[in-house]
Amino acid sequence: MALKVVALAGGVGGAKLVDGLATCLPPEDLTIIVNTADDFTHLGLKISPDLDTVLYTLAGLADPERGWGRVDESWNFLETLGELGGPTWFRLGDRDLALHHKRTQRIERGESLSAVMHDLRERLGIEVTILPMSDDSVQTIVGTEQGDLAFQEYFVARRCEPIVHGFTFRGAEQAHPAPGVLQSLEAADLVIFCPSNPWVSLDPILAIPAIRPAIEPKPVYMVSPIIAGKTVRGPAAKMYSEFGIDPSALAVAQHFKDLLEGFVIDEQDAHLAKDIEALGMRVSSDVTLMQTRKDRFRLAQSLLQFACSIPLKEST
Amino acid sequence: MALKVVALAGGVGGAKLVDGLATCLPPEDLTIIVNTADDFTHLGLKISPDLDTVLYTLAGLADPERGWGRVDESWNFLETLGELGGPTWFRLGDRDLALHHKRTQRIERGESLSAVMHDLRERLGIEVTILPMSDDSVQTIVGTEQGDLAFQEYFVARRCEPIVHGFTFRGAEQAHPAPGVLQSLEAADLVIFCPSNPWVSLDPILAIPAIRPAIEPKPVYMVSPIIAGKTVRGPAAKMYSEFGIDPSALAVAQHFKDLLEGFVIDEQDAHLAKDIEALGMRVSSDVTLMQTRKDRFRLAQSLLQFACSIPLKEST
Repeated sequence: MALKVVALAGGVGGAKLVDGLATCLPPEDLTIIVNTADDFTHLGLKISPDLDTVLYTLAGLADPERGWGRVDESWNFLETLGELGGPTWFRLGDRDLALHHKRTQRIERGESLSAVMHDLRERLGIEVTILPMSDDSVQTIVGTEQGDLAFQEYFVARRCEPIVHGFTFRGAEQAHPAPGVLQSLEAADLVIFCPSNPWVSLDPILAIPAIRPAIEPKPVYMVSPIIAGKTVRGPAAKMYSEFGIDPSALAVAQHFKDLLEGFVIDEQDAHLAKDIEALGMRVSSDVTLMQTRKDRFRLAQSLLQFACSIPLKEST
Repeated sequence: MALKVVALAGGVGGAKLVDGLATCLPPEDLTIIVNTADDFTHLGLKISPDLDTVLYTLAGLADPERGWGRVDESWNFLETLGELGGPTWFRLGDRDLALHHKRTQRIERGESLSAVMHDLRERLGIEVTILPMSDDSVQTIVGTEQGDLAFQEYFVARRCEPIVHGFTFRGAEQAHPAPGVLQSLEAADLVIFCPSNPWVSLDPILAIPAIRPAIEPKPVYMVSPIIAGKTVRGPAAKMYSEFGIDPSALAVAQHFKDLLEGFVIDEQDAHLAKDIEALGMRVSSDVTLMQTRKDRFRLAQSLLQFACSIPLKEST
């Protein structure tokens, strides 16, 4: 029988692993639940950075250099907007803009984010199911020494510079999972936490009250987003440091220890395996840096094999 | 004393003559009143084709080949929008889009079209005053054998193909001139009708009740938009034919005979001079086709000289 997999993702690392999983699994057996707490409205456009990173990556349209946005992009809209006195801090490419524009118009006409994303992924030829975590608005607010900041203000405008002391997921308590989220989790044989930021990519998904209980009974496997104390991209390691926690794969495993059955660390972190196992989970060490598409496929395959292998009883 | 000039314009020919006038006159002595009855909302964007043609032309940003839109334009937004199932019949360039976006956002925040255009022209370094005819919505409806069509539907989507039997300027009766329009006309020593379409560029301006009476006491001079029975661009000649009128400079002079003191025809139409003079106006024949920027300047200069020369009494 087919293995039904649900992956939780946000950001570039998440999108890369999801691309690997999509290569390993038949599309009907993979559902991706994507963080939308980074979503915001800018220039009147409804922007969903994490959804779009997954969308562009699975469509083969993601820019490989920048790590965000589209290939073959041009910047004439933004350049001209700047000349006319408009804001340019959030980089909007001309092609990317078309996606935001289409999404905005349809949502303003009363369609749900998930309905719009369903149509957009079909138009981009993606067969895998991609679901926003919720059609309701959830907003990550970053508590910093400079006050509370909306996520994109912290992440893009201030380049993650302010020292962080906490997060609020505004609206999460009242948010309902998007259609299909709970059904896919119920049907799942395996839940994967992608190598995404624990604080601002995965925690917001888990903050929706109905989602965490649907995950708890399932085997959950995660790939560490931290390798040798650093993230490939993004501020996760910096955030751990600012909370007074040594940034490491161990810290990530501790973060999710109540949920994880298995954890994949980078082979550079093999020395942490015993401490992580002591948290009550299986550990595998692997090459986790995904530099090529082949790396994504190989890591996804290896992760699935690890998750599906029978846990060995400890020898007594 | 300085000659205060107000020019009424719409379309490419209008923008070219206005550019010539702006080269001849100090900016404080020239005001351009632009047709806004072609304005429409498309993809949620407030688009003002005639205002933008004047704006781009005076800023030196108009595309010289296409006759509309901007130089150095790219089309990645529209191409991608098409791939996502959006409409592509109205050609929106990536740079052009920035202007529409800025205008739309500001109008939606409650600013008037004229206030927004004032700011945009300053940002583009244009010193001449450019006024929309009105901040109120006026819409040209083209009555055709295929029914009533919104102007852009007739002009762009159906390429002026349906046979026309009339025009309605919806909202004109209730529209107020934009701030500055009546003041500039009152102060004007000379009003110029640019070589623009009489039916759909100039008539909508004159259809605003307060504007025509402000023009009537002034010397009005016009450059014919029809040369040797044809227009350089646009459907004016085709419209005359469809009304059963032979398209010619004479037909245009007849159209505005109650307003015109002087009329400039192309030298190819010199044989019409007597018939036009018989309508009660002065006539000058000239090279009116504006192929280069120098042509615009020369025609504007020649027009001003003609208008300022003392009308010769007919010898008895």
